Amino acid sequence: MDNNLFNIKNGRNLTMLVDFYELTMGNGYLESDLSDTIAYFDMFFRRIPDGGGYCIMSGVEQLIEYLSNLKFTDEDIDYLKSKNYFSDKFLEYLRNFKFQCDVWAIPEGNPVFPGEPLVTVRGPIMQAQFVETMILLTINHQTLIATKANRICRAADGRPVMEFGSRRAQGYDGAIYGARSAIIGGCTSTACTIAEQMFNVPASGTMAHSWVQLFPTEFEAFKTWAETYPNNCVLLVDTYNVLKSGIPNAIKVFDEILTPMGVKPKGIRIDSGDITYLTKKCRTLLDEAGYPDVKIIVSNSLDEHIITHVLSQGAKIDSFGVGERLITAKSEPVFGGVYKLVAIEHKGKIIAKIKISENEEKITNPGFKKIYRLFDKTTDKAIADLICLNSETIDNSKPLEIFDPVFTWKKKKLNNYYAKELMVKIFDKGIPCYESPSVKEIQEYAKSETNKLWEEVLRFENPHNYYVDLSNQLWDLKHDLLNKYASLYE
Amino acid sequence: MDNNLFNIKNGRNLTMLVDFYELTMGNGYLESDLSDTIAYFDMFFRRIPDGGGYCIMSGVEQLIEYLSNLKFTDEDIDYLKSKNYFSDKFLEYLRNFKFQCDVWAIPEGNPVFPGEPLVTVRGPIMQAQFVETMILLTINHQTLIATKANRICRAADGRPVMEFGSRRAQGYDGAIYGARSAIIGGCTSTACTIAEQMFNVPASGTMAHSWVQLFPTEFEAFKTWAETYPNNCVLLVDTYNVLKSGIPNAIKVFDEILTPMGVKPKGIRIDSGDITYLTKKCRTLLDEAGYPDVKIIVSNSLDEHIITHVLSQGAKIDSFGVGERLITAKSEPVFGGVYKLVAIEHKGKIIAKIKISENEEKITNPGFKKIYRLFDKTTDKAIADLICLNSETIDNSKPLEIFDPVFTWKKKKLNNYYAKELMVKIFDKGIPCYESPSVKEIQEYAKSETNKLWEEVLRFENPHNYYVDLSNQLWDLKHDLLNKYASLYE
Repeated sequence: MDNNLFNIKNGRNLTMLVDFYELTMGNGYLESDLSDTIAYFDMFFRRIPDGGGYCIMSGVEQLIEYLSNLKFTDEDIDYLKSKNYFSDKFLEYLRNFKFQCDVWAIPEGNPVFPGEPLVTVRGPIMQAQFVETMILLTINHQTLIATKANRICRAADGRPVMEFGSRRAQGYDGAIYGARSAIIGGCTSTACTIAEQMFNVPASGTMAHSWVQLFPTEFEAFKTWAETYPNNCVLLVDTYNVLKSGIPNAIKVFDEILTPMGVKPKGIRIDSGDITYLTKKCRTLLDEAGYPDVKIIVSNSLDEHIITHVLSQGAKIDSFGVGERLITAKSEPVFGGVYKLVAIEHKGKIIAKIKISENEEKITNPGFKKIYRLFDKTTDKAIADLICLNSETIDNSKPLEIFDPVFTWKKKKLNNYYAKELMVKIFDKGIPCYESPSVKEIQEYAKSETNKLWEEVLRFENPHNYYVDLSNQLWDLKHDLLNKYASLYE
Repeated sequence: MDNNLFNIKNGRNLTMLVDFYELTMGNGYLESDLSDTIAYFDMFFRRIPDGGGYCIMSGVEQLIEYLSNLKFTDEDIDYLKSKNYFSDKFLEYLRNFKFQCDVWAIPEGNPVFPGEPLVTVRGPIMQAQFVETMILLTINHQTLIATKANRICRAADGRPVMEFGSRRAQGYDGAIYGARSAIIGGCTSTACTIAEQMFNVPASGTMAHSWVQLFPTEFEAFKTWAETYPNNCVLLVDTYNVLKSGIPNAIKVFDEILTPMGVKPKGIRIDSGDITYLTKKCRTLLDEAGYPDVKIIVSNSLDEHIITHVLSQGAKIDSFGVGERLITAKSEPVFGGVYKLVAIEHKGKIIAKIKISENEEKITNPGFKKIYRLFDKTTDKAIADLICLNSETIDNSKPLEIFDPVFTWKKKKLNNYYAKELMVKIFDKGIPCYESPSVKEIQEYAKSETNKLWEEVLRFENPHNYYVDLSNQLWDLKHDLLNKYASLYE
């Protein structure tokens, strides 16, 4: 079963996909007898791409598969030995590597916000450090694409969006896991065949210009297609001239081939030219020919902005095929998640750690934490996220006062609310303990959770900042540490 | 050997990574008895990213591995059958699929230009069509990254550039093959460990902020590092405060640990703050402390523009670590290569095909073609590329007149030149017939070929357009077809 080679679930071993410094540090921890120090790391991000109001968490399933398959082969050990960098003790440690960390993550499909931990790892520093590269790579990539897809699908305003981007993806996994994330973000199907095989999400597609070019005439190309796929007849009408050739030939084929068979033609696709102008003209021609139900599908370098714009101009579009700008998140192709040490344990006690920076937004939230999402009981809308120390609990039955972590005088008292803990445990002492939902289930979940955000947060441009607040205890801890370091460098 | 799962060479089967419409068309070709029609497809691109003067060809080795491993498994056939889309005859064809095409490509490391075929495929339409998705995905991705890396390395002006981007790559292969292409583009090393294992390119790395945070003091963190890696001691000095803490602690460790051992410290790294200001200050402090040979390495969201700018400001930098903006080609993350039908054979005769578009740059060059690169015999500089019909040959001993394909009165007569054919055959009737050089050899080749371009073409902003001309025969063929179609839709 060769195709399993793609599927981490079935054993793809990505252990050596690691920044070299994770290994030099690992060796260093061991050499300085620190390797068993229990450390806590948070993965979080600082900015929402495209100036949006939220991101869509994605990639947890692949993270679980990676962590489940961590293993150094003899070849890996031999290669590392050849670098003359590592002690024999360290190489033996790797040879017998057994993942032992606890891991928590926000489940896929959840809207997530800057500053809150998406993933938290607790375990021996050797291990918790080692997994940095792949945690970031996995969550950064998939969250980036799910977030972009979600924007594009919202712009399409209920019309189906098909993911068409494999050929312009950044590498094979960019296509495969990009398709997965696109579905999570809201796409109805993908052109990427292997993504259907792997994730049970619908693959779809019709014809390329080359099909039309191969035949002596466009009419013959369309006729042959209609005869081959009478029940799935979508014709690409822009190989020569949409209005003078493509649409007249399509109508002729509908009239002469499909209608006599009693079959309703499905649609036409336009992949170039002015979308607003052409779709209006096409709609009129199709309607006049008696085909008001034939769908108009458009593609060609679309994104949320072009889609919004052509729809506002009254373009007659039934569905969208979106390629390169989705699969690479072209407008902002980097999701800047980071992975930072937030605490260590010393004699069983948690000691919070902070990363200082002259850039305030780069200062970390210290300590072992959890997140509550607070909902209004009446509207079921999300009010705010509250990051707390892990030892804290919220009693839903009591009023709760939250405050802005920068402008601390801005306070809000909640009475009619309920609190939901966001993170779930996905590994317990190295053993996976969370079963990922199917991609379709995650898609549904993302839709329902996104619907719990206020309209103001959903806006594309200048959305309202969703509140991500710190508990009193966490705020105090953070500011104690900041004051301590500030006094050191006065 | 689990890690082989990454390596197409050792059997990674990407056959099902294909746009679904390649399969629906394949089935259509077979159903309409067209499947054995011999077709010619060109892969080419239309625009150079970032307004640059050229791209660096990359990805041919992986393309060869993909084409060598084309095979549908029983599971693939069962899955396709379950779609209820394909005839049994087609599924049998796939089950017995054996690649039979001829393929030509421009070798990796060559500067390449818009409009010229990077890859040409000749074979049964079924097969030549099928490989579209992966040819585009492979060459688009790697050429994008090699081109971006080449820009960044040129900006660094001889200083080493290390590729640091795995954590922000778009998927696992984005990191792995991105690292490969970064080396081809000129990077001296990568942080991606598995890339060294797979491609024999140097992996490197030092420490993260978490190493420093783990210790009670920065000094202890540095001291432990120096004791562990005396011969590779590069210290990250920006965890707390570069000038007040990081550099003083580094110097103390150099003085107290390394100097007494008779070891020269290697360097310091800065990952935040104002690079120009900090590196000047650091250089002075290090020099004054007696460490003029300690290298200053900088990272943090660098690209060719920031590098150019800080160097012009006199920043004291010895080498660069470049991450997210390289590995995603952030400023322009899509390489828009396309794959178009350019000819078919009918009764042994080649019939050229053209794709018309209202957008002139989208019109294809028809026919089965080859490319000559023309060099000045005296300077060895590249003068122009000439796209010809494959049947044409250039006689180096005779003068050659070339002309602009749009402004045809602009002509140039070449006397003192030699012509080199650019494309090589990589598959002969389905059998691979080209051995890829090593990645290091490709890097060297890219460097030497880039040096053959005029300075004007190498410029970052508004470079001179390198000439890509058409032979008389090809120009005539193209314009005959254009006139024919234009007259159809008058």
